[in-house]
Amino acid sequence: MIEVALFGAGRIGRIHAGNLARQPRAKLKFVVDVDTAAAREVAAAHGGEAVAEAAVFADRGVQAVVIATSTDTHADLILSAAGAGKAIFCEKPVDLTVERARMCAQAVAQANVTCMIGFQRRFDPTFAALKTRLTAGEIGAAEMLIVTSRDPSPPPPEYVARSGGIFKDMLIHDFDVFRWILDDEAMSVYATGSCLTDPAIAQAGDIDSTAVTIRTRRGLLAQINTSRRAAYGYDQRFEVLGSRGMLQAGNHRPTEVRASTSASVAADKPEYFFLERYRAAYASEMTHFFDALASGSAVRTTIDDGVAALELAEAATTSWRERRIVEL
Amino acid sequence: MIEVALFGAGRIGRIHAGNLARQPRAKLKFVVDVDTAAAREVAAAHGGEAVAEAAVFADRGVQAVVIATSTDTHADLILSAAGAGKAIFCEKPVDLTVERARMCAQAVAQANVTCMIGFQRRFDPTFAALKTRLTAGEIGAAEMLIVTSRDPSPPPPEYVARSGGIFKDMLIHDFDVFRWILDDEAMSVYATGSCLTDPAIAQAGDIDSTAVTIRTRRGLLAQINTSRRAAYGYDQRFEVLGSRGMLQAGNHRPTEVRASTSASVAADKPEYFFLERYRAAYASEMTHFFDALASGSAVRTTIDDGVAALELAEAATTSWRERRIVEL
Amino acid sequence: MIEVALFGAGRIGRIHAGNLARQPRAKLKFVVDVDTAAAREVAAAHGGEAVAEAAVFADRGVQAVVIATSTDTHADLILSAAGAGKAIFCEKPVDLTVERARMCAQAVAQANVTCMIGFQRRFDPTFAALKTRLTAGEIGAAEMLIVTSRDPSPPPPEYVARSGGIFKDMLIHDFDVFRWILDDEAMSVYATGSCLTDPAIAQAGDIDSTAVTIRTRRGLLAQINTSRRAAYGYDQRFEVLGSRGMLQAGNHRPTEVRASTSASVAADKPEYFFLERYRAAYASEMTHFFDALASGSAVRTTIDDGVAALELAEAATTSWRERRIVEL
Amino acid sequence: MIEVALFGAGRIGRIHAGNLARQPRAKLKFVVDVDTAAAREVAAAHGGEAVAEAAVFADRGVQAVVIATSTDTHADLILSAAGAGKAIFCEKPVDLTVERARMCAQAVAQANVTCMIGFQRRFDPTFAALKTRLTAGEIGAAEMLIVTSRDPSPPPPEYVARSGGIFKDMLIHDFDVFRWILDDEAMSVYATGSCLTDPAIAQAGDIDSTAVTIRTRRGLLAQINTSRRAAYGYDQRFEVLGSRGMLQAGNHRPTEVRASTSASVAADKPEYFFLERYRAAYASEMTHFFDALASGSAVRTTIDDGVAALELAEAATTSWRERRIVEL
Repeated sequence: MIEVALFGAGRIGRIHAGNLARQPRAKLKFVVDVDTAAAREVAAAHGGEAVAEAAVFADRGVQAVVIATSTDTHADLILSAAGAGKAIFCEKPVDLTVERARMCAQAVAQANVTCMIGFQRRFDPTFAALKTRLTAGEIGAAEMLIVTSRDPSPPPPEYVARSGGIFKDMLIHDFDVFRWILDDEAMSVYATGSCLTDPAIAQAGDIDSTAVTIRTRRGLLAQINTSRRAAYGYDQRFEVLGSRGMLQAGNHRPTEVRASTSASVAADKPEYFFLERYRAAYASEMTHFFDALASGSAVRTTIDDGVAALELAEAATTSWRERRIVEL
Repeated sequence: MIEVALFGAGRIGRIHAGNLARQPRAKLKFVVDVDTAAAREVAAAHGGEAVAEAAVFADRGVQAVVIATSTDTHADLILSAAGAGKAIFCEKPVDLTVERARMCAQAVAQANVTCMIGFQRRFDPTFAALKTRLTAGEIGAAEMLIVTSRDPSPPPPEYVARSGGIFKDMLIHDFDVFRWILDDEAMSVYATGSCLTDPAIAQAGDIDSTAVTIRTRRGLLAQINTSRRAAYGYDQRFEVLGSRGMLQAGNHRPTEVRASTSASVAADKPEYFFLERYRAAYASEMTHFFDALASGSAVRTTIDDGVAALELAEAATTSWRERRIVEL
Repeated sequence: MIEVALFGAGRIGRIHAGNLARQPRAKLKFVVDVDTAAAREVAAAHGGEAVAEAAVFADRGVQAVVIATSTDTHADLILSAAGAGKAIFCEKPVDLTVERARMCAQAVAQANVTCMIGFQRRFDPTFAALKTRLTAGEIGAAEMLIVTSRDPSPPPPEYVARSGGIFKDMLIHDFDVFRWILDDEAMSVYATGSCLTDPAIAQAGDIDSTAVTIRTRRGLLAQINTSRRAAYGYDQRFEVLGSRGMLQAGNHRPTEVRASTSASVAADKPEYFFLERYRAAYASEMTHFFDALASGSAVRTTIDDGVAALELAEAATTSWRERRIVEL
Repeated sequence: MIEVALFGAGRIGRIHAGNLARQPRAKLKFVVDVDTAAAREVAAAHGGEAVAEAAVFADRGVQAVVIATSTDTHADLILSAAGAGKAIFCEKPVDLTVERARMCAQAVAQANVTCMIGFQRRFDPTFAALKTRLTAGEIGAAEMLIVTSRDPSPPPPEYVARSGGIFKDMLIHDFDVFRWILDDEAMSVYATGSCLTDPAIAQAGDIDSTAVTIRTRRGLLAQINTSRRAAYGYDQRFEVLGSRGMLQAGNHRPTEVRASTSASVAADKPEYFFLERYRAAYASEMTHFFDALASGSAVRTTIDDGVAALELAEAATTSWRERRIVEL
């Protein structure tokens, strides 16, 4: 049994706690949250104990930590966990600055601990199946990637202000999808955007709609379009054009009911948001983490992937702010 | 150039007139209709002359007739045309009685003239492609056929009273589809139904909703469901289950627009009714008729097909009225 | 905590054991199976104890039993459980004879215990959403129901011989769907069928392909088509035509990947079989059972539903064997 | 009757000739082509006469010209026709240089003749319906446009060399779609691309895969992705995200057959290429042209639209060649 400490008892922390509880190889030992009531509640639901951070790192029995706290605490927790020789699962992004993220990656490398970043989309059944079929050569060589990534509604302006900007907060997942699907690195990044949904977002210095283009070292092309608001729900699609065809990953629907009326033939909207759409992915990534720990094999989404996605987010931010193409 | 006389200048007659006009091998010479104004209008639009019936059969130059009049006149026109040695294209059904339909078939056989019945569905691009792929063995041997056939709205009660009943008026097309697709003949027919859309239909002695089951000589199964009313338009689908898969023929939509809103992801309703859905089929069957005349080859939907479909309609009517399975 | 005994440690028993383990209100106490190794394995996985049948009924602490054994043992276990005052969840069918099923229903009524029959399809997210929307009046009054129900491949002939025939073994679910969706009872049943997939099924006295038509007391129409073999997987669809439109329940796909190649635009096949397609439904029905026990409310699929579906299966069997319409 | 001269008897010229022949208000009088055999063939099929260019402009009876010749002749023919006071329908692009295109627009304005540019996509049933629904406010205010535009296979390298480059040759349609759908003008254009399908295209100084981003004056965003090769056929889609939803224009399929096999559930590929996909659009634009002439109303795709699309193509070419964002 691998004893685990969970940092963060908020929305995503609870998802991880539930998935942790279903791991045959893991046991939730500690839950840490500044909101101690929340920590106690999660601990009670899954059999652990609510403690302060120090107790975790003082406990030699804890072999792994799951970090699901607010972004500004990720780096410190990674450094502490690496220092204590504990395996790490950390939510994206590693940090809001590339420098600190790289420092974390170095610490992880020196400590030689496993560190997995929560790019759960790679574990989504549809996305993972597409990747497998692409790798198997079903459509020949990949040439273009088109990513559509839209949230159902914008976050509150105060969240936006602390978020590091849309590229680091929202598109970081899309940048990871880009690297994973095309299996190539960016040569140039162009990003533009607008504030179209809520003026408060502009006042917070951010945008809510973006259009990003990446050209890779091998000359492949990727376009990413995002919006903080899609009235019809969480829109998570991408398509890859290859030399022999195209693979598309479509949205998931809650049900397969179709209604034909005098108005239209209507299907369900997509799953509402990430907790619904990526439910299976969250479960699957946690299983992957503990499988990797048990077998000693590498994790599929490393801290280096976290750094690389952040570098793209930084480049996109620069491109947007300075209205120029960023060469990498 | 094949000189042609058109009987009937109503809705379907005008469709045929337009398609006739596009045949490079045919020339519309005469138009006959009891409504002489309508006849003149159609003649004027396509370059023919409005005349009385007698003029057609007295004219030796007329090589072919297209019969698009009311059902009760079909048999007499077929007999006259066969007697005059003219090729015949006739709308379904041949007649409302099996006896007279058979008599027409005999007359056609004796006169050795071409007689094509307007089962246009066999010429629909989707239906025809499905048949071709089925014949090519794409899903192995056919085992079951499910036909869905629904009109957008019921006809006026006075039409129903003269229609010969829903099985002869509406399902005759579905019976032809059954024979064509399964390439087999009925062994037993069971039909039931209800009047669910308009009590006036029941008062006219008919039903508007039917459920028919046919078992063929080879033991294949077919189910046909029909309604006089589908709020979403003209619903024309069928599917064939075979030993190695299934082929489905779906509805055609006017456009490929899809709207995602807070309510749903909505596509177009099907094409509204037969004039829209089978526009290409009507054009294609007319081309087939004149191609067959020009080349001397057989037509694909003969008067024998017309008689066979009518026999099934008669059997279904008996099954429904007498609440029994009809063995053939 | 409700202490539960599970009868049957086979394929479906294991599904129920897993779902039982996730109930916050239930605790698996005993597992019974003639295959004691299987019983022990399931018990070990979920924390119960493998015992003989007698031990269950002698234990006053056991409040509920879950029956997932072979069909011929269902009735005796229901009678024993009812006699012992225990709540019952039993897989379909109640029994292969209507008489014994009715006897069970009487025993359950007299003992005044909860008895839920495992018609899991009512708990399928797609089917349940359709029913809710139909009840809400989205398409007006229901008029016709078309059910397509096909297995991926036929069972072994020795299974067929003991199965009670296709109508009781396979269509019993479809008969329940019919009663549930149309909220009406059958007035007449017509069934025909053939053996088209495997001659061994005919030798076992059964068929593998059926076409059933039901007319209800209110004159509604239902058609059910089934096959023991669909090369493309488990085909579970139905559609309801109503006075203002149509609701369709479609198949679920493992992923939403779509491949466009020089051959076609291809989507996934349906989920392979019932364990995959109805995974969510099995979980949901178990939650419903324990929610009902906890709240004292009625279960949604009672033993009377089990008897009624069996009566329809019996009527269909008679209709098929005696080649006649069965009036109810 | 409007007497018409057709310039160009090639592939697209023949399409226009056929559509001209179906106009009740127009009569094909002359056909001009350097390939006089082709000109004679088209003239023979539709009742006109093959003549030299001079004969057209000398004939005062000719009221309209349809220009379907190679691009390098468009400008001269427009200038001659405008000078002769004849109405003009001209295929895109007006010219390969913005300067000459503007000169043509001035000549047209001074002569005060009607000049319609063949942006047939605006007349595609799906695209036109989407535009109508967008204008009606169905998804609120438009925010983003994503255009996918892919040919089935690359043109021969010698065509590429004379084409003016992919942006003027292929994307000019997409630039027109952008202006039409968003009803706004570009503020900045960024274009990148690669040669991924055929090295001969690179040798001809061009690319075959592009990614274009436009930001408009109102801050709306558009992304266009194109390829000269889609193994699955002609891929012509776009989607508009608005404040209250999304409208998508999908591909058209030849038939609505769907095949479910052990491999997949497969639908038809899209219509093969522009002659198939835009057949209805070509017919409809010609009708629009003659309706406008008859009623004296403005045409929907003017020479100014032609110039504006060309300016975008020029900006994109510059952006790609000089690796910079072009501000307009």
